[in-house]
Amino acid sequence: MPMRIESIDFFYVSMPQIEDIADGSQDALLVRVRADGLTGWGECEASPLVCIANWVCPMSHEICKPLNQAVANQVVDGPEDIARIARRVARDGLDIAQTDHTFSGVEIALWDLLGNKHGKPVYELLGYDRVYPKTPYASQLFGDTPDQTRQKARASVRQGFKAVKFGWGPYGLGDVEADRLQVEAAREGLGPEGILLVDAGTAWGDDPRKALPRLEALEEHRATWLEEPFVGEALEAHAELAAHCRKVRLAGGEGARNIHMARHLIDYGKVGFIQIDTGRIGGIGPSKKVCDHARAHGVTYVNHTFTTHLALSASLQPFSGVEDSWLCEYPVEPKALAVELNHDELALNDAGQIQVPARPGLGVEVNLGAIEKYLVETQIKIGDRVLYRSPDPNS
Amino acid sequence: MPMRIESIDFFYVSMPQIEDIADGSQDALLVRVRADGLTGWGECEASPLVCIANWVCPMSHEICKPLNQAVANQVVDGPEDIARIARRVARDGLDIAQTDHTFSGVEIALWDLLGNKHGKPVYELLGYDRVYPKTPYASQLFGDTPDQTRQKARASVRQGFKAVKFGWGPYGLGDVEADRLQVEAAREGLGPEGILLVDAGTAWGDDPRKALPRLEALEEHRATWLEEPFVGEALEAHAELAAHCRKVRLAGGEGARNIHMARHLIDYGKVGFIQIDTGRIGGIGPSKKVCDHARAHGVTYVNHTFTTHLALSASLQPFSGVEDSWLCEYPVEPKALAVELNHDELALNDAGQIQVPARPGLGVEVNLGAIEKYLVETQIKIGDRVLYRSPDPNS
Repeated sequence: MPMRIESIDFFYVSMPQIEDIADGSQDALLVRVRADGLTGWGECEASPLVCIANWVCPMSHEICKPLNQAVANQVVDGPEDIARIARRVARDGLDIAQTDHTFSGVEIALWDLLGNKHGKPVYELLGYDRVYPKTPYASQLFGDTPDQTRQKARASVRQGFKAVKFGWGPYGLGDVEADRLQVEAAREGLGPEGILLVDAGTAWGDDPRKALPRLEALEEHRATWLEEPFVGEALEAHAELAAHCRKVRLAGGEGARNIHMARHLIDYGKVGFIQIDTGRIGGIGPSKKVCDHARAHGVTYVNHTFTTHLALSASLQPFSGVEDSWLCEYPVEPKALAVELNHDELALNDAGQIQVPARPGLGVEVNLGAIEKYLVETQIKIGDRVLYRSPDPNS
Repeated sequence: MPMRIESIDFFYVSMPQIEDIADGSQDALLVRVRADGLTGWGECEASPLVCIANWVCPMSHEICKPLNQAVANQVVDGPEDIARIARRVARDGLDIAQTDHTFSGVEIALWDLLGNKHGKPVYELLGYDRVYPKTPYASQLFGDTPDQTRQKARASVRQGFKAVKFGWGPYGLGDVEADRLQVEAAREGLGPEGILLVDAGTAWGDDPRKALPRLEALEEHRATWLEEPFVGEALEAHAELAAHCRKVRLAGGEGARNIHMARHLIDYGKVGFIQIDTGRIGGIGPSKKVCDHARAHGVTYVNHTFTTHLALSASLQPFSGVEDSWLCEYPVEPKALAVELNHDELALNDAGQIQVPARPGLGVEVNLGAIEKYLVETQIKIGDRVLYRSPDPNS
C-alpha cells in the first residue's frame, strides 16, 4: 500500500518578546506531516504568519494557489514523490514570492517522514554511503565594541570551537577604521590558529565601492571568508569584489529562494563558499542539487542555520557525505525556545566536531511541550470561514 | 508643512468564483494611502492574503518585520521620500520573500498621492517632459483549438488591435506540431500585417531542448517575440535559446521581484524585450530604473498588466516618455471586478493607440462601490489581538 499524507500541521511558536536584532531563533514555524502512524517534522526559516497565509490563501488564478492543495493527500513512498510534489508546488505557487520559503518546512518534514518509513537517515535516501564530521563554527553577532568582540571570541575558543563567525552588529555600518578594529579584535580573541569568518549582512547593498576598502583588514587578519557583502541578487557586485580578493573568498547564498539564485551566485557572482538554508530554498532536495553544482565548480558548500537542531540536522543532510565540505554553521546563542524544541542536541564531540545523527529521518525529536509553551494562537478568517487556526500539538 | 502619511488601507476584492485559469483579473489587492486630505491608490499584482499577512505580521527579527512599520507616518514630499521608504522596506523585509510584491501597491499609491499633491501626472515626477502613445497588444489566452485561436485573433483585429498576444492555454504543453498549428492559426486570424506575440507561460521550466523545436514555427509565422519560454531565473536557458533565434526575440521579466532579477534577464539572459509588472517589482520607481537599464542595452521595455486600468496606468508611467518603446500590454478579457473598479478607461483612440492619462497622479478614479461589492471580508488574529480586518472603503 502506498503511503498517503494524512495531515499537515503548521505550528507558529515565538518567544514572548522579540528583540530587534538579527537573531533568527526568536520564533519558528514548525511543520508536522503524518501518514500511516508515522510523523515527519520540518521547519521554515521564514516569517511564520506570511507562510501560513501562503499555505491557506484562496486561489487567485492558475499559478497563484494555496500550497496546501498541492500537498494534501499525496502519495509519498520515495524521494521521487517529494520531487513530484515540489514541481506541483512550484507551478501552483509561481506568482507567490513566498512559495519556496513556505514549502521548505513541508519538504523537510516529508524527508523526515520518508526516513522514518524506511528506517534510514535522510542522507542515505540522498545517496550518501557514509558521512563525515563537520567542524562547526560558532555563529554569533559582533560585539557592540571591539573589546566585546574579543571577549566573545575567547569564550568560543574556551567552548571548544576552532572556527568563529562574527556578523551584523555594528560591522559594515560605520567607517572603515571601526570595521578594521572589530576584525582585529576578533583575530586577537581567536588566536593565530583559529578560523575567522566575517559576515557583513548585506550592509553594502549592491555597491562594491563600499566593500573594497574593507578587504585590506580581512586579508591582514586572515579571514577565511567575507560573507554577504551585498544582497544576494547583486551578482555583478559580487564578481567585481571577488576579482579584488587575494586570499579571502566571498561567501553567500543564505537568501537563495531557489536553486537558480544559488547557481547564479556561483556561476556569475564567483563566490567561493555557497551557504544554503534548507528552510528557505525549498528544502533538502534543492539544497542537494546546489551542493552537486558547487562541487562541480570548485565551490565549497556550507549550511546556513540559525535556529533549532531540527533545522540544523536538515541543513547538514545535503552535504553530510561530502568530505571536502568540512565547515558547518552552528548556532551558539539560540533563544530558549530553539533550545527547548528539540530533545536531542547535536553536541560537539571531544574533537570539537559534530556529526549528523545516524538515526532514521532527521534523527531529532521534537518536544511537543515546548510547542505548547511557545505556541502563538493564530487565526485567519475569510467571511465566516476559518482558513487557519493554530492546531493542538497534542492532538 | 511636510505631508505625512495618515492612513494606509488594504482592500482585498475578488470575483465570487475564481476559475482555475491564468487570468489575473479575478481578484485584486488595492491599496489606499491618505494624507493632508489627499488620496493615492495602488494595486499589488499578487496573492492578496499573503500580502496582507506580510503587511501586518509580527516581527521575527531585525530583517523580518511587518512592512507597515516602515511606511506608517512617513513624510512624503517628493520622489526621494518614496525611494527612502523603499530602502527601509527592503531592509526590514529582507527575509520575507513576499516583500516586493506587497510593497508594490503601496509604492504606486505613494506616487499617485504625490502626483495629486503637486498637480502633476506621475510621468512628470519621473522626469519625462512628454509622453508617446503606445500600440496596445490584445493580451489573451490561446483558444483550446487552433480554430478558436483563429477566431479570437480575427475578433481582436475587428476591435482595432494591430498587435495580439496569445499565451498559456494548451500552448507548450502538448507536442511541437500542436503548437505549430496554434501559431499558424494565430497568424491567419491576424492577417499578414498584424504583430504576433507568443507567450509560453514558462512551460519549459529551464530546459532549452524543449523550447528549441518550437522556434521554427515562430520564425515562419513571424512572431515578434517568444515570451517566458522558461522560469525567469533560468538565465542560462534563456541565453542558449536566444543564441538560436533568427528574427524572433525573447521576452520576459513579468516575474521580476526586484531590479536585479530584471537586469539579469537583460545582462545574462539576453532577452530583447523586458516586461515589467509595476505591481510586483516593487512599484514605479524600480520599474523606471529597469527601463533606463534596458534603453542603455538596446532592449525594449514593455509593461506587464493583466488586471485593472489603475494597474495599467501605473505600468505605463515608467516608459511613457520613451518613444522607442511603442508596444504595451492591454488586457482585453478582464473580469467584471477589474472593469468596475475604475471609472475611467484608458480606451483605444481612432488610431488604435492608447495614451497615459494627462491628469494628476495616475489619472484613474477608483470606484468605491465596486470595492464594497467585491470586498472579501478578511480577519487575521494573534491571540485576542486583531492584526487585520477588512476596512470600510467608505470610511
